[in-house]
Amino acid sequence: MEFKISKELIKELEQLIQSKNDQQLEVLLNDMHHADIAEVLDELDFDEATYIFKVLDSEKTAEILLELEDDLRENILGRLSPKEIAEELDELETNDAADIIGELSKEKKAEVISELQDVEHAKDIVELLRYKEDTAGGLMHKELVKVNENWTVFTCIKEMRIQAENISRVHSIYVVDDENKLLGRLSLKDLLTTSSKTPISEVYIKKLNSVMVDTEDVEVARIMQKYDLEAIPVTDELDRLVGRITIDDIIDVIKDEADKDYQLAAGITNDIESNDSVYELIKARLPWLLIAMVIEIVASFVLKGNEDMFEKFSTLIIFVPLLSATAGNIGVQASAIVVQGLANGTLKNYSRSYFSKELRVSMTSGSIISLFLLGYHSIMYQQYLVGFAISISMVVVILFAATLGTLVPLFLHRKKIDPAIATGPFITTSNDVFGIIIYFWIARLILGY
Amino acid sequence: MEFKISKELIKELEQLIQSKNDQQLEVLLNDMHHADIAEVLDELDFDEATYIFKVLDSEKTAEILLELEDDLRENILGRLSPKEIAEELDELETNDAADIIGELSKEKKAEVISELQDVEHAKDIVELLRYKEDTAGGLMHKELVKVNENWTVFTCIKEMRIQAENISRVHSIYVVDDENKLLGRLSLKDLLTTSSKTPISEVYIKKLNSVMVDTEDVEVARIMQKYDLEAIPVTDELDRLVGRITIDDIIDVIKDEADKDYQLAAGITNDIESNDSVYELIKARLPWLLIAMVIEIVASFVLKGNEDMFEKFSTLIIFVPLLSATAGNIGVQASAIVVQGLANGTLKNYSRSYFSKELRVSMTSGSIISLFLLGYHSIMYQQYLVGFAISISMVVVILFAATLGTLVPLFLHRKKIDPAIATGPFITTSNDVFGIIIYFWIARLILGY
Repeated sequence: MEFKISKELIKELEQLIQSKNDQQLEVLLNDMHHADIAEVLDELDFDEATYIFKVLDSEKTAEILLELEDDLRENILGRLSPKEIAEELDELETNDAADIIGELSKEKKAEVISELQDVEHAKDIVELLRYKEDTAGGLMHKELVKVNENWTVFTCIKEMRIQAENISRVHSIYVVDDENKLLGRLSLKDLLTTSSKTPISEVYIKKLNSVMVDTEDVEVARIMQKYDLEAIPVTDELDRLVGRITIDDIIDVIKDEADKDYQLAAGITNDIESNDSVYELIKARLPWLLIAMVIEIVASFVLKGNEDMFEKFSTLIIFVPLLSATAGNIGVQASAIVVQGLANGTLKNYSRSYFSKELRVSMTSGSIISLFLLGYHSIMYQQYLVGFAISISMVVVILFAATLGTLVPLFLHRKKIDPAIATGPFITTSNDVFGIIIYFWIARLILGY
Repeated sequence: MEFKISKELIKELEQLIQSKNDQQLEVLLNDMHHADIAEVLDELDFDEATYIFKVLDSEKTAEILLELEDDLRENILGRLSPKEIAEELDELETNDAADIIGELSKEKKAEVISELQDVEHAKDIVELLRYKEDTAGGLMHKELVKVNENWTVFTCIKEMRIQAENISRVHSIYVVDDENKLLGRLSLKDLLTTSSKTPISEVYIKKLNSVMVDTEDVEVARIMQKYDLEAIPVTDELDRLVGRITIDDIIDVIKDEADKDYQLAAGITNDIESNDSVYELIKARLPWLLIAMVIEIVASFVLKGNEDMFEKFSTLIIFVPLLSATAGNIGVQASAIVVQGLANGTLKNYSRSYFSKELRVSMTSGSIISLFLLGYHSIMYQQYLVGFAISISMVVVILFAATLGTLVPLFLHRKKIDPAIATGPFITTSNDVFGIIIYFWIARLILGY
């Protein structure tokens, strides 16, 4: 049932392109879903992909354009004239068209817009270009079905048929007044079961979630998920209905949010992808490496200052990597659970009971690890007091890392900074340094040196 | 527009509960959305929440039940009789009802099922309980609108009105034959615009994505996202239509996938949450800490074996934390980009060009860090050859970490193991050990000791 790219298909396409057999190409591709064709084009080289792109008609290519990898899309757009691009955009929904225009250079943008044939569509696209990408305005499309409160069910169904022509999914029907102010919604089901002479004002549902054009995209995602909505209307400052956001637009927001947390934890910024350039990749990664380097240079000072200690008790130094790794792991675990708790709402802010639970978890884990270490050190090196000192400092360092790992993301969250930063290199290397300081301090106390 | 919990509201509710003013409670809560009521109940104590739960009618409480935090739901279910639970379930969609039954003990499960009033509904729920949670069968619900290919548009609309009574969202109308075999779909729009005497077999669309009951949930999510579907039908081994999955069911799958990667990177397993018990948290975290401990004990051997080196060149040892941290960070960055590339399809398997790009990125970053370190060491400690040895080993260790960070997730992916494991403690601590081995080995070569 599902489509799989085969080497044979790719080879066949390449041969058809070489022999310029456009007719056969069309026959072969016309039956395929646009998402599948996009997958195929990504496997071909730029010239071949562009050739196929020009053979297919714009109704199909417009949809394909949306599914292509960024660099191939950029390349193909670069080879199309403003008029050709405008033809593609005339086929697309307003927000998809606006997204593609947003990728063009400033001059080309203006040329393409002036070539758009459908004036209403062009006006809508230009309006969407005004909004910031990460707001409801940047997510919404202009396509929606709306009816006037003064119409009857009969007029309503007639009008809906006209409006629905350009809309792939109807979802809700919004009810507005003469000023286009959003009043409520009608469900398709209600419409199917109401007599056709009933005025809309008598049947529509007045309660309705909506968002403002400047609502943040993650907030829109949160509301749509909480109330289990498949579409939400967007209003401007005067409560006028200006657009609609559907659940498929929100899935990307949800995925990007999750990806961002993961990237922050891995010490990457700027939302990069595996197919970005070397320069982009370095720009997103090097800053974190440099921050970690500076912090770890502090660690080198701490070690230097404790040279006398590990010259006398030589096993102290060889467990430093174990100590840092454990502290780092405990800290990241603690932070990750807080970050996820904040994200899904199971944790709202600092809670004494949560913190005490985290301390019990890390105290237990720490004790198990320390006891093991004490036994191991005693058997291997027979210096019981040193082993004792190492184990005790291990427990203290673990408790410290758990405390920092729990409190830092909560603190960042309260200061409206993304708490996921706490799972990244900055905090984990800081944990290293604090861990080493505590380790030698406690060892010094116990060993009395 | 949006609901916010206020302290006043909570206080008012608590007073109404104390004075047993059920009527006023109903008035206050009846106007609220069930997701908001769930949020309020989570703020109250168990007794209060249960009290409110028993005051409201089951149409409302059934929906609330779905939105509650796990422990509150468990607690409330514990205080309801099998008959009361069955009343709630009669109000829910089949898959939601099955999910709640799945949380009950074995005996209670049987009692509740025997109390269900709607026999058809009960049969559907029992059927759903058979499927594994992470398959299409475990995700789907039985509620859907289907029509027979032999009907006319007129019969079809009449039947649809009946079927749609119990379905919150219609999405597609599926077309089946007399054996309930899935043949295709009808769009609502087509139905609105076709004459009522036309037979269905003439208007339905034969091309249709579907999944099998045993398709994995992440695969369902992938297909629905790729083809931008809001609902997908589920068939059994005989191609019979057995259920339907809608996009809102899939959002949780997408979020869980992203969460799982993040948790693996943070050294947590078992999909835990901040409100899990101490025991659950330890079970999910301690294994990774123990694995890291065993690996880092190897590091202690390596250091012990190189004691002669750092006794003679004392600055060698103080940069070990910097070296491990940098290697760890580079490795995690490299792995995270591969893991995300594999997840979103920009990377499919080992590619020489991608690997060489990663090497260029890490070579550049590594050189910058090493040059900085060389300068710093020369100024601080004036041992130029030692500084040189440290810098060179740093570059080699970084290249090694980048290589491991890139190849390990690709290897795991090919072996059908979740590549996100490569960003977790196992690989990062292994990187530590390899890093330290390489570091001293190169330093020994250069310093000729």
